[in-house]
Amino acid sequence: MIGLRHLSARAALVAVTLVGYGALASAQDAPLPSWNDGAARKAILSFIERVTREGGPDFVPPAERIAVFDNDGTLWGEQPMYFQAFFVFDRVKALAPQHPEWQAKEQFASVLKGDVKAALAGGEHALLEMVMATHAGTTTQEFDQVVRAWITSARHPTTGRLYTEMVYQPMLDLLAYLRANGFKTFIVSGGGIEFIRPWTERVYGIPPEQVIGSSIKTKYEVRGGTPVLARLPELNFIDDKEGKPVAIQQHIGRRPIAAFGNSDGDFQMLEWTAAGPGPRLALLVHHDDAAREAAYDRESSIGRLARGLDEAPARGWIVASMKKDWAQIYPEIPTKK
Amino acid sequence: MIGLRHLSARAALVAVTLVGYGALASAQDAPLPSWNDGAARKAILSFIERVTREGGPDFVPPAERIAVFDNDGTLWGEQPMYFQAFFVFDRVKALAPQHPEWQAKEQFASVLKGDVKAALAGGEHALLEMVMATHAGTTTQEFDQVVRAWITSARHPTTGRLYTEMVYQPMLDLLAYLRANGFKTFIVSGGGIEFIRPWTERVYGIPPEQVIGSSIKTKYEVRGGTPVLARLPELNFIDDKEGKPVAIQQHIGRRPIAAFGNSDGDFQMLEWTAAGPGPRLALLVHHDDAAREAAYDRESSIGRLARGLDEAPARGWIVASMKKDWAQIYPEIPTKK
Repeated sequence: MIGLRHLSARAALVAVTLVGYGALASAQDAPLPSWNDGAARKAILSFIERVTREGGPDFVPPAERIAVFDNDGTLWGEQPMYFQAFFVFDRVKALAPQHPEWQAKEQFASVLKGDVKAALAGGEHALLEMVMATHAGTTTQEFDQVVRAWITSARHPTTGRLYTEMVYQPMLDLLAYLRANGFKTFIVSGGGIEFIRPWTERVYGIPPEQVIGSSIKTKYEVRGGTPVLARLPELNFIDDKEGKPVAIQQHIGRRPIAAFGNSDGDFQMLEWTAAGPGPRLALLVHHDDAAREAAYDRESSIGRLARGLDEAPARGWIVASMKKDWAQIYPEIPTKK
Repeated sequence: MIGLRHLSARAALVAVTLVGYGALASAQDAPLPSWNDGAARKAILSFIERVTREGGPDFVPPAERIAVFDNDGTLWGEQPMYFQAFFVFDRVKALAPQHPEWQAKEQFASVLKGDVKAALAGGEHALLEMVMATHAGTTTQEFDQVVRAWITSARHPTTGRLYTEMVYQPMLDLLAYLRANGFKTFIVSGGGIEFIRPWTERVYGIPPEQVIGSSIKTKYEVRGGTPVLARLPELNFIDDKEGKPVAIQQHIGRRPIAAFGNSDGDFQMLEWTAAGPGPRLALLVHHDDAAREAAYDRESSIGRLARGLDEAPARGWIVASMKKDWAQIYPEIPTKK
């Protein structure tokens, strides 16, 4: 496509710098190396080939090559609970000295005693209350620093990995390959937008302006001459289910041509994406690999996938089996830190 | 910077295709040709040179080169009233047959009689009511088509130009030059986001995902098997004054390093941008050219600029005089259609 063979070595080097290393690497290596050569990989490659073939009937101009990705359970893990919930619990513990009243508040007290099961027993309402208590009350800049400190130090209770080491290598391959083919990649997550943004550029190659998520309200204030955005304990937007297409339109302003999810919370995002004209790619990651990750779908309280499994075949959506389609789950990490 | 002189003609052609024509054109021509060689142009060029000089003390990595632009009065005109108000009035007329009740509604009736002054006499509340009545009730896709049809045919009452021919050539030059220097350019407008998006890519080179604006709520529905986003007569967000930094954080997730406005509605956006560390560029377009465009500031109900004029010098913000700093106002257009 870029005709690199016509360039001198020096010019090629310049060209590589211009387009970024990923493009050249992907053009030389076999694409999607961590995917097994099954139907899912074939469908992805066929879709990308069709929309990028200039002069072909399905050609899509680069500006319209928008791909959207759910985060929890699609780009990284979500068991035994959403990783952001671990962050919330750690924040409750860190902030407890400033909140003596939490000792007498049911779910907060359970967190402080280390009783996760009791802490989660209050359901979504109690969890949301803890999110508000721990995510608000700072400026956006302070919250960014809190997240950066946590995400580079906290470790998953069973794998012992940093949470950012529990991203899925096949999805990293897919993100890179889409971008090498002119796609703009976005995250559309039910998780908190300001919890995700501080690390997506480093981990996924996705800049903050391409991250959409749930949010609380902020308020602009000038404090002692310094303008800040204060985070308020008030919901702004829940980016889940029907909220995902709404947020995609609000944020991106055009319909994606490819969407990737793993739960029924992503159903409407895939439905909206697939309903546009021309070639479309809608893919669900199916967590069916108890040996290497986790096996859950219809009955899971986290990442429940039932309607998606039922309707995917008739809708032409791809269900990628982690067990069969993925040669690898997590990235390699150095054995010694 | 790109070392084009080392490339063969063929390789150069490839490189130009890769980086887009704008980069090469800007590298060869004098930058900002429609700006007079005064203090404003010098300050812009000096800022861009500082943040792009690799190894220099003020170097900013490309990913952080975010520039935000107000639209009304900054990128295109806003007199004798916001161009979107002309659209609203035209929509009231177009939709009137379906709304016999509007004949008896004060401001609506005035619009239908062609009495603009009386139509605007109801102030913001009445105008907002007309915005809701004309901007809601469609799907996002239908509204997009309505805007496209209007923007390519409606003409300004005094200049006779299409509204998109009343964009400011010096700002087009600036947008192109910033992008040629690795900046990502965003619109942050008080105007309706879905009114602006359909034409910004063609006119400004700004894709829809880089447009932020005021909005009404939408709702995801599946109608007879087809998913739609229905536009509701309910305000979602007013992107003005303190709302601009809030929306910038929500949408972009990082602080811009350059901001361009023309009214006190842009004050907080410039203040927020200028308060970050390192070199910052904050610029106000001053409408002081009655001969070629319009002269208004402190006393104008549209595009009022008072605090900005008062505080710009002490804050180090640039006030660009349309009369003195701009060699040209609008782009050349063919004399015959």
